[in-house]
Amino acid sequence: MPQADTARFLRDLHELRRIGAFKTGVHRPTYSPQDMESRRWLMERMREAGLEPTIDGIGNVFGRHSGAGPHILSGSHIESQNEAGWLDGALGVVGALAIARAGLPVDVCAFADEEGHFEGGFLGSRSIIGELDDAEIDRSRNRTDGTPLRDALAAAGLAGLPRMQIDPSRYKGFFEMHIEQGTQLERAGLRIGVVTGIVAIWQFRLVVEGQQDHAGGTTMAERRDAGLTAVRLLAAIDAEFPRICGERSTWTAGRIAVEPGAPSIIPGKAEVLFQFRDISVETLRRMEATLRALVQESNRRERCATTLQVISRSTPALSDARLMGALDAAAEAHAPGAWQRMPSGAGHDAQYIAKQVPAVMLFVPSIGGVSHHWSENTTDEDLATGAQVLVDGAARFLAGA
Amino acid sequence: MPQADTARFLRDLHELRRIGAFKTGVHRPTYSPQDMESRRWLMERMREAGLEPTIDGIGNVFGRHSGAGPHILSGSHIESQNEAGWLDGALGVVGALAIARAGLPVDVCAFADEEGHFEGGFLGSRSIIGELDDAEIDRSRNRTDGTPLRDALAAAGLAGLPRMQIDPSRYKGFFEMHIEQGTQLERAGLRIGVVTGIVAIWQFRLVVEGQQDHAGGTTMAERRDAGLTAVRLLAAIDAEFPRICGERSTWTAGRIAVEPGAPSIIPGKAEVLFQFRDISVETLRRMEATLRALVQESNRRERCATTLQVISRSTPALSDARLMGALDAAAEAHAPGAWQRMPSGAGHDAQYIAKQVPAVMLFVPSIGGVSHHWSENTTDEDLATGAQVLVDGAARFLAGA
Repeated sequence: MPQADTARFLRDLHELRRIGAFKTGVHRPTYSPQDMESRRWLMERMREAGLEPTIDGIGNVFGRHSGAGPHILSGSHIESQNEAGWLDGALGVVGALAIARAGLPVDVCAFADEEGHFEGGFLGSRSIIGELDDAEIDRSRNRTDGTPLRDALAAAGLAGLPRMQIDPSRYKGFFEMHIEQGTQLERAGLRIGVVTGIVAIWQFRLVVEGQQDHAGGTTMAERRDAGLTAVRLLAAIDAEFPRICGERSTWTAGRIAVEPGAPSIIPGKAEVLFQFRDISVETLRRMEATLRALVQESNRRERCATTLQVISRSTPALSDARLMGALDAAAEAHAPGAWQRMPSGAGHDAQYIAKQVPAVMLFVPSIGGVSHHWSENTTDEDLATGAQVLVDGAARFLAGA
Repeated sequence: MPQADTARFLRDLHELRRIGAFKTGVHRPTYSPQDMESRRWLMERMREAGLEPTIDGIGNVFGRHSGAGPHILSGSHIESQNEAGWLDGALGVVGALAIARAGLPVDVCAFADEEGHFEGGFLGSRSIIGELDDAEIDRSRNRTDGTPLRDALAAAGLAGLPRMQIDPSRYKGFFEMHIEQGTQLERAGLRIGVVTGIVAIWQFRLVVEGQQDHAGGTTMAERRDAGLTAVRLLAAIDAEFPRICGERSTWTAGRIAVEPGAPSIIPGKAEVLFQFRDISVETLRRMEATLRALVQESNRRERCATTLQVISRSTPALSDARLMGALDAAAEAHAPGAWQRMPSGAGHDAQYIAKQVPAVMLFVPSIGGVSHHWSENTTDEDLATGAQVLVDGAARFLAGA
């Protein structure tokens, strides 16, 4: 069985960490000089590993394996959030490089702008599966400074380059290694998570219409307090959802606002942004049905009318069973009893690649769950174990393919 | 018994309504040309009614009865909120004039800036009882345009005039007639409210400290959602307060806010502005004790800590029993079975005058409860009945004094 060269893997990671270094993290926003330097660095490493590197018109860096198949695809993103961690994205790119260095038939890719510095987000993985059109590129701007995407591409020397698309028939599977960005592994004392899929997010807006009135002159019996109706509805959701949710479901009221929001005025309007996430469409449907029933019940009982608006419903990206099985076996070999299957609550490039190629993700622990901050970290030991499991899992999968 | 000249009373009211007319309401902000015109108009009416009018250094217009006592004091304010109603304040001033026109020994006063166009508010009634010092006048500015109060007084021709104070020993009682600014009378089909007092307002800030986290990567078991803790606490208040409150207590969460307020971020902080009002200090104390117990219970149960900060606790201004008795009798005479005792949920000049002179207020219905808006209104019939009850009540009180 091919083995990961974990010393080399860690050396690659720490070398990449020096590009755009910020405190103990990195600052490599998409298409910045630091980001482009990291892409050139990656192309050099690909060449060393025997791959044929190219960069395309959206900034995707692609290292093609020149030998015989069957092939796998692996990668992640290389740019970072502003002043953020050194592993988010970089880990999956360097992990893919470790598969190649182990001599396995893999194409390695660093997808551009997974982090969404530009409007739209996931530009690279969407482009490579043909889900990004030129009109969107024409429209998109940098979310921080408003720079048009076209100008940023030109400044980075990418204008005019063709955008590549993958040929799905070339690949048996896609592997993406990533930090967990949560504390589930750490809390459970585990070292590897085999990702069952990327949860779908269903987002809603609850709008409650009441009657704005003076808090002194209006008796409790007369009031139509939109804030209070929202509170009662959210309390009912809090009581009911645990009874109908899935094992790993989450639900969040991220925004609760009342108008006008003054101390002596009864709120005439309330707005709540509510979302839930799960990997099972059946569970998501049950949660929505429960939410609708609770809104109906509120509208029967309350003097304020609540309307439920759907903002978006995404589709879960389920991992491939055979890919998970290969990673399970590799995890048990390198971290016996210290791994689990788990869903990913956050979005990743894998959710787009999974539309065309069977995909799986591998998580390593995040110290303290810190994410999107320069202090993000994982122990070298956990990183090395992750690389071993990734390479071994890829080898087992190819052996069975 | 002296009787109110209700035709004259209504003529006075409608004449005053023309000064600063705005749609069917008025626009007479404090010290504006329209406000000063209304004060000069009032001094003329006082003279007609046999009173000796003066205006003082804060804009209080005072009409002194020159005959023998015992005397009563009556009045309200004459300025309006911006583009607001024709009766709020004006009714109590013209009602006091009606007492004088009926030949009763009354001093009539229009207190300046009850509406709080300038910082501090209640400038006239606070000045006349000696609770407004020059340093506050030096500091105060217009809340809308920032004009210093001193400049506004100078522009209105009031700079340098002495500020008068009442001699409490001169008065047996104070009467203030006002629109209800609510719908309790209208809904109950009543025409007169004898005000038992002006409720106190106890105001609090609830701050919940949680942990801001990604809504995808953090399981329900790991979260410290400050918004959810606030929702549970507010739901507990909603369940518990009806069991311990007084008959007319009100409580309001006028502001509910979570930070950062984004759809995919678990709120790390929540802030609630919460207040309750009642006329009984005993009830207010019971409500505060219950609130504190619920916060304690929340802190025992929840993973987010809630702190309770006191913003302010005012003192209720209770009406005088003999003054209420006189108005009860007058109300029963002129609106048999169509009156009730009730507290005032809003603040009025009477709450300051009550600190030195036994006081009472009389409410007439507000159509639809509209207040602080140009469409505010009361039927002429209800206004006339109010004037009759006011004059009759004053006469009955003086007869027993």
